[in-house]
Amino acid sequence: MEREKIQNLISQMTLEEKAGMCSGADFWNLKGIERLGIPKVMVTDGPHGIRKQAEAADHLGINESEKAICFPAGCATASSFDRDLIRRQGELLGQECQAMNVSTILGPAMNIKRSPLCGRNFEYYSEDPYVSTEIAAALIEGVQSKNVGTSAKHFVANNQEKRRMTNSSDADERTLREIYLASFEGAIKKAKPWTVMSSYNRINGEFVGDNKEYLTDILRKEWGFDGYVVSDWGAVNDRISSLAAGLDLEMPPGDYENDRLIVKAVQEGKLDESVVDQACERILNIIFRYTENRDEKAVFDYEKDHKAAAEIEAECMVLLKNENEILPLTSDKKIAFIGKYAKTPRYQGGGSSHINSWKVESALEAAKEIQELANVTFAEGYQDEKDEVVEALQSEAVKAAAEADVAVLFLGLPDNFESEGYDRKHMNLPNCQNELVRKVLEVQKHVVVVLHNGSAVLMPWKDQVEGILEAYLGGEAVGKAVAEVLAGIKNPCGRLAETFPLRLEDTPCYLTYGKGFDNAVYQEGVFVGYRYYTSRKMETAFPFGYGLSYTTFAYSDLQLDKKEMSDKEHVEVSVKVKNTGKRAGKTVVQLYVAAPEAEVVRPVRELRGFEKIFLEAGEEKTVTFILGERALAYWNTLIHDWYAEEGTYKVMIGENADQMCVGEEITVHPTKELPKTYSLNTCLGELMRDPKAQTVMAPFMQGMAQNDAAMDMAEANENDQSGVVNQEMMAAMMEGMPLRQLLSFVPGIKREMLEQMVNALNQL
Amino acid sequence: MEREKIQNLISQMTLEEKAGMCSGADFWNLKGIERLGIPKVMVTDGPHGIRKQAEAADHLGINESEKAICFPAGCATASSFDRDLIRRQGELLGQECQAMNVSTILGPAMNIKRSPLCGRNFEYYSEDPYVSTEIAAALIEGVQSKNVGTSAKHFVANNQEKRRMTNSSDADERTLREIYLASFEGAIKKAKPWTVMSSYNRINGEFVGDNKEYLTDILRKEWGFDGYVVSDWGAVNDRISSLAAGLDLEMPPGDYENDRLIVKAVQEGKLDESVVDQACERILNIIFRYTENRDEKAVFDYEKDHKAAAEIEAECMVLLKNENEILPLTSDKKIAFIGKYAKTPRYQGGGSSHINSWKVESALEAAKEIQELANVTFAEGYQDEKDEVVEALQSEAVKAAAEADVAVLFLGLPDNFESEGYDRKHMNLPNCQNELVRKVLEVQKHVVVVLHNGSAVLMPWKDQVEGILEAYLGGEAVGKAVAEVLAGIKNPCGRLAETFPLRLEDTPCYLTYGKGFDNAVYQEGVFVGYRYYTSRKMETAFPFGYGLSYTTFAYSDLQLDKKEMSDKEHVEVSVKVKNTGKRAGKTVVQLYVAAPEAEVVRPVRELRGFEKIFLEAGEEKTVTFILGERALAYWNTLIHDWYAEEGTYKVMIGENADQMCVGEEITVHPTKELPKTYSLNTCLGELMRDPKAQTVMAPFMQGMAQNDAAMDMAEANENDQSGVVNQEMMAAMMEGMPLRQLLSFVPGIKREMLEQMVNALNQL
Repeated sequence: MEREKIQNLISQMTLEEKAGMCSGADFWNLKGIERLGIPKVMVTDGPHGIRKQAEAADHLGINESEKAICFPAGCATASSFDRDLIRRQGELLGQECQAMNVSTILGPAMNIKRSPLCGRNFEYYSEDPYVSTEIAAALIEGVQSKNVGTSAKHFVANNQEKRRMTNSSDADERTLREIYLASFEGAIKKAKPWTVMSSYNRINGEFVGDNKEYLTDILRKEWGFDGYVVSDWGAVNDRISSLAAGLDLEMPPGDYENDRLIVKAVQEGKLDESVVDQACERILNIIFRYTENRDEKAVFDYEKDHKAAAEIEAECMVLLKNENEILPLTSDKKIAFIGKYAKTPRYQGGGSSHINSWKVESALEAAKEIQELANVTFAEGYQDEKDEVVEALQSEAVKAAAEADVAVLFLGLPDNFESEGYDRKHMNLPNCQNELVRKVLEVQKHVVVVLHNGSAVLMPWKDQVEGILEAYLGGEAVGKAVAEVLAGIKNPCGRLAETFPLRLEDTPCYLTYGKGFDNAVYQEGVFVGYRYYTSRKMETAFPFGYGLSYTTFAYSDLQLDKKEMSDKEHVEVSVKVKNTGKRAGKTVVQLYVAAPEAEVVRPVRELRGFEKIFLEAGEEKTVTFILGERALAYWNTLIHDWYAEEGTYKVMIGENADQMCVGEEITVHPTKELPKTYSLNTCLGELMRDPKAQTVMAPFMQGMAQNDAAMDMAEANENDQSGVVNQEMMAAMMEGMPLRQLLSFVPGIKREMLEQMVNALNQL
Repeated sequence: MEREKIQNLISQMTLEEKAGMCSGADFWNLKGIERLGIPKVMVTDGPHGIRKQAEAADHLGINESEKAICFPAGCATASSFDRDLIRRQGELLGQECQAMNVSTILGPAMNIKRSPLCGRNFEYYSEDPYVSTEIAAALIEGVQSKNVGTSAKHFVANNQEKRRMTNSSDADERTLREIYLASFEGAIKKAKPWTVMSSYNRINGEFVGDNKEYLTDILRKEWGFDGYVVSDWGAVNDRISSLAAGLDLEMPPGDYENDRLIVKAVQEGKLDESVVDQACERILNIIFRYTENRDEKAVFDYEKDHKAAAEIEAECMVLLKNENEILPLTSDKKIAFIGKYAKTPRYQGGGSSHINSWKVESALEAAKEIQELANVTFAEGYQDEKDEVVEALQSEAVKAAAEADVAVLFLGLPDNFESEGYDRKHMNLPNCQNELVRKVLEVQKHVVVVLHNGSAVLMPWKDQVEGILEAYLGGEAVGKAVAEVLAGIKNPCGRLAETFPLRLEDTPCYLTYGKGFDNAVYQEGVFVGYRYYTSRKMETAFPFGYGLSYTTFAYSDLQLDKKEMSDKEHVEVSVKVKNTGKRAGKTVVQLYVAAPEAEVVRPVRELRGFEKIFLEAGEEKTVTFILGERALAYWNTLIHDWYAEEGTYKVMIGENADQMCVGEEITVHPTKELPKTYSLNTCLGELMRDPKAQTVMAPFMQGMAQNDAAMDMAEANENDQSGVVNQEMMAAMMEGMPLRQLLSFVPGIKREMLEQMVNALNQL
């Protein structure tokens, strides 16, 4: 609807109606106003399926929802590194929303995986903001292409479940910009979500929902967001300050208490009515964007979408290990499927994303229709209600393993290990499952483990098994996807979007994660995920970006279209990628950039581009990337902007974050100038290297050359036979000597002289 | 001198004279005022020897000083863990000062070893504040027992040399209190140094020298310091603000420019004259404390003190490895002493602590008088001016090694690797030395390495050699001490006061140390040294507290005199220590405390006591410790005080920081109350656990029990078959639900009601 019409509608609304528009009608619906023709529209949970409660029978939104397709969760979809694939998942979700008359699906969930322990990691994408924001953008584009809204959530720095309603994420400006905001920035700029969900948490003490800097200055003014901001359910701290900060819609509305407070605040002059008008305009704009583009004919094709869910999941799974080419399995092998999850897979997490799935397809069931898996037996192996070995199940499984040529163990985290609402305490699989692997390995050396989990786990049997397939939480059709990959019908092509560490104690925020009372100090700064492990040269179980295929790929001939550039230019990077194996497959070409040694600490390398490509056996393609300032820059807190420091950057293609294959250099000359203030504490070293300062410094230094004491200093090393100083010390001393220290060491220098010099420097 | 007399003197001084008293006469002398009988006294560098420049011939104080005894440096003396021993070193230094008419020796240097890279670590004691402050206290007590002053330096958080004049150490309150201030606190309270030296650096942006909180509130008011504060040489940023903050004496005086600025500031009313009077009083008090107790008859007995230096160093060295009882060496063995440092040991670092040594005794020279080492040959092996293999030297050394029964390699860091003024870039020994070890190992499997270095180094040959003796920078008599320990005349008894990590990349502040432009973010917080490695369960080369002996010890029968205590009580801990080997020796009984899981993150264990004891072979002694609140507490930032949280603490005796031997528990009940402010963001979980809150909460909760919606919440789990929530999630949700969120989920709740409840809670 045109802006004028919406403003006209608002002008006809009473103050009470306007305030009312700033919260829902109930748990899932926005308010409509019949006399003005404003429709009531529904929003529902997502992000990887539709959780539509037909009737809001409870006040917490937890009763059973309508049947829908449960697609692979965020943990899985990010591993695809495939924008087109995720866009397709988005299109299907959008179509389904139209069929169910849902105006907006609450997702994607795009918080950074700061620790593997975060209970909600299964919904999130990555430890890397670029992967996160690119995958989120694809999902948003897909959904919105069907004229259904998304809600980029949970904005921002909502990285733990522990006390998530009040916890303060205490991080510095640079860390927030480079990691936590960056995870949203790309998607919001590129895919323009209709709505953004402001998170429960505080940042540096202040609730995000009350914070104009995040909700208005950054989100709208910097990034161009033009939809409405909705509170996470129950996230409103102070309705008046939040409305002014830019939190347009409160959900759920409770007893409309806050609507009344808004009216009162306007009447008492504590809130400008224009703020309410503005929120209404944003909300109405999105309501009409949906209703005016409504696709009444859309149908929910369960069968088709279920198949699609299987196809998508097959492109998400990550093959972590494949020794002795144990995979793919072949029909000449007797195969034992072992583990409860072969029959009843774990495929989604608990909490608001929980789908009432249309049907669940297990690997065991899917195997029946796959010739290569004709010879499959099954043993349950373990229970998952309690972490206790059930002897009968275990011995049955060991027997089945012994009698087979290959044992495929379906393991994973039970439901209550991973959920919205609370964090994990450890990274272990249930002991009874690890014990099962140990027992099976005693009788069978050809073991493949299939994992169903939403976040990194420890694998004590990693070096003993021959194959590991990470299926993540793969949605209701996961079984089919797993069976097809095991059988080689599909060639695995996922890559880890998160590091699998060797030990929980190795994780960057291990010492403090989940331990603060009501705040979390982000003391690792920008060193999140692989930025930490690579910079500290730590061994991991599987690095970020890691994943195998049934074929192999080689990278060569990396070329940059220039050797030098300013921060306003772009460089085109091309690299040849060849399928060097015997079957067709996909790989993820990963581009990393290493910054030069600088006066700011930077991670040893950062992912700045990726492309998933398909290659027939023997085929070679050239992949190109365009890199600009942003791919080279860090967030500079002097100019509050991105800044690519002068120097030579390395552009590399990596097999994963640990393993670089080819690289080239580019030299960057910034045009942005950093502000410089001189003072009596400016050091001689800086001044001598500062071309601008020379006009002022040269005459002064000439004067110094007449000064015996100064000459003592300059020549001290040459004369010194005492061992007190050496050349390095003298150099460091001159380098780090603040101007005011000349007062202590050089007779004849006056403070006034130095102050005049500083003034002159500051006037340059 | 009585206070009255000093005040009387001050009353006779002109403003110019008083201002003048606040800086020196020259580089090393304070100003005297002849007409008032105020003598001119001298201070000189230390801390492990006297660097007295007879004439201030240069303006940097770097020309040759008078001959003196170079005692073991701080790195070595801390390893003794022996208060009596270090007190003795202090007494000798004090005696020497009297003989040389030095009023104050500038030391001890007691900054925390935050990173092994700090160039000045060789002067510092430990990564642990308790060890640091206890050893410093002993040195201070020793020196001052001779009526000579000390200067506890560099106060405070001066942990790097890079840009040390202006760098800001950015650390939180708790970290500063528990680690960096704590390193000074014990010594200042217990040993009362006559002076404290304020450091060059800033803390959280402000120069220490300008900071009243550190120089007056903490140092004087909290800790009872009653001497004068002197600037590190050239550390004054702003003379007026620093004088007001409590920096009494500026050194060196330069051209007396700041004296004139003080006069001007008083005249212009910008500085209260009483501030100048106070500084004068403090300075005069210390001047007269020296002159009135002057020991004119003191003599500098070089021969005796040199011998003492050898005896002290023998108790400092740390035996890190002794496989196959390769040590002690015996006279039936042909022994090759290999390496330049066998003949010309490296025994001190560069910079202000550099002593013009009376004589230097090498191990090679000392061996001549030791029967067990009758059979010693020598080969230089390497040069240390440049890190280049000299083939002739190397092959001669390999030949000597091959022809001997045992090769003792004397290795170490060359002079310019470690110095005041700049930090190390890596932890390696020179390549040519490591290469020498490799070559020698090819021809000789019985290899002992003797190390001369001021801070932890990497030892790539650690697993191949049979013996490692860490001699540190052991002073001018190091050779004798080394020879006596090698020969078994002395039984080694030092323990590491710092962790030797496996890799530089493992160190707590690796990612950022020395990388900031003008600030250092102490992002590892309290997790410095072993607090980091043990809490992250990391393997190290040698842990904190580690050290071997030629005998063995066993710990048993740990007893606490109570099982419960309040934070006002003390617990007596006793443990039996037995020499279970065949010869007499000393061990360091180390007491560690582990705090309960708390709402504040704490290191897994912390050293809270140590005693060095001597035991004949087979002898057993009982060692006792007294622990009070401080040994259990952390620094609480709500009350700005130490706080021992309610709970059960583990008291342990450890062989070193990694290896606990015996332990007992004590339960602590704090009497201190933490302030509690309730708000709409106080969570239900806290309120339900808070006995005080019950009177207000109980009626409210009863009301809730009548509320259908609230009951929905409480019972949601039981009813829920949807998989959306589970029991854990519901519990976490209730626990972390802020009061104000009831507005969103419970119809009928009004904000006013909640606000009234919060008011009532706050009035409890």
